[in-house]
Amino acid sequence: MPQGQPSVVPDDGLTTRQRRNRPLVFVHTGIGKGKSTAAFGLALRAWNQGWPIGVFQFVKSAKWKVGEENALKVLGASGEGGTVDWHKMGEGWSWIQRAPAEGELTNEDKAREGWEQVKRDLAQETYKLYVLDEFAYPMHWGWIDPEEVVEVLRNRPGTQHVVITGRNAPQQLIDFADLVTDMSKVKHPMDAGQKGQRGIEW
Amino acid sequence: MPQGQPSVVPDDGLTTRQRRNRPLVFVHTGIGKGKSTAAFGLALRAWNQGWPIGVFQFVKSAKWKVGEENALKVLGASGEGGTVDWHKMGEGWSWIQRAPAEGELTNEDKAREGWEQVKRDLAQETYKLYVLDEFAYPMHWGWIDPEEVVEVLRNRPGTQHVVITGRNAPQQLIDFADLVTDMSKVKHPMDAGQKGQRGIEW
Repeated sequence: MPQGQPSVVPDDGLTTRQRRNRPLVFVHTGIGKGKSTAAFGLALRAWNQGWPIGVFQFVKSAKWKVGEENALKVLGASGEGGTVDWHKMGEGWSWIQRAPAEGELTNEDKAREGWEQVKRDLAQETYKLYVLDEFAYPMHWGWIDPEEVVEVLRNRPGTQHVVITGRNAPQQLIDFADLVTDMSKVKHPMDAGQKGQRGIEW
Repeated sequence: MPQGQPSVVPDDGLTTRQRRNRPLVFVHTGIGKGKSTAAFGLALRAWNQGWPIGVFQFVKSAKWKVGEENALKVLGASGEGGTVDWHKMGEGWSWIQRAPAEGELTNEDKAREGWEQVKRDLAQETYKLYVLDEFAYPMHWGWIDPEEVVEVLRNRPGTQHVVITGRNAPQQLIDFADLVTDMSKVKHPMDAGQKGQRGIEW
């Protein structure tokens, strides 16, 4: 997208520089491809700025996004940009020391555990970019209250950018977010009977 | 997006595996954010598979996408995944040895030079993933014939995946592509008087 001029200059008492460096909330929603992929692409820019990045994957999956995960881990360990912490719900979240017994925690419990950690990290300003991947789902399913999410995001300290992906992002979040992109499906290979392939879908 | 079952099983005489490994053409179009970002996110998966990747940036810009460029170059040089060649129109294309005098080549000439190289690389199967970034524009502007692009893509040998980004992708290309995502703008910070910021827009 070409670099444009703002269409409105707001009467908010901020200088252009203050406004420019405002922390942002992004939402990538819609039924098309590219929601998470674009979020990880955004992480490349953050990495290039030397920012600490925290990825929280709110989805249980064995092979999905392993490409992005490996790439961002190699980048984070390269010493040439920012750091990358990659937290996966599917592996029981890295900050939970004791592995709960099988069936002890539901996916709803795990999603809430993830959100509690995001809240702690936001309070401590652990990261400069948060990728809350597929986080729209636990909100859509009623596991996590979107009103609370908006309230926490509204009151987060410092300059912390947050990207939330997933279909069916709740309206309260869309209303609050600074940037919302709806990825619409125009055409997908599965429509033509094609299954996902390595290197493309994961 | 959850891994789904194909909605149709085509009568094309191919096995599921053959169909699965079919080379794909992706188009990311629309006026919203995330078209290029998602293309570079896709490159992370390709890198993770060890694929050679060629990026062709069909746009003249000093600072845009420097984050993605630096990140993909570090990955390409890491020895842990695929290689990355990054070609920029704005720097006069890397394969052109002699720098033309100022004003010697128009942007239209340069865009055509880029496309000629893409054609040579496709014929030689140089890469397994091509990111033709902002390539929709020279087609939209009438500099490069979309019919020719479709014809070249249709006849490309081997298994070479191609991602084309940019607003106003021509209809012939959309009709031909395997996967088309339209990134729609729901809300953008520039609407609220905010300019682009480092780490976010570039």
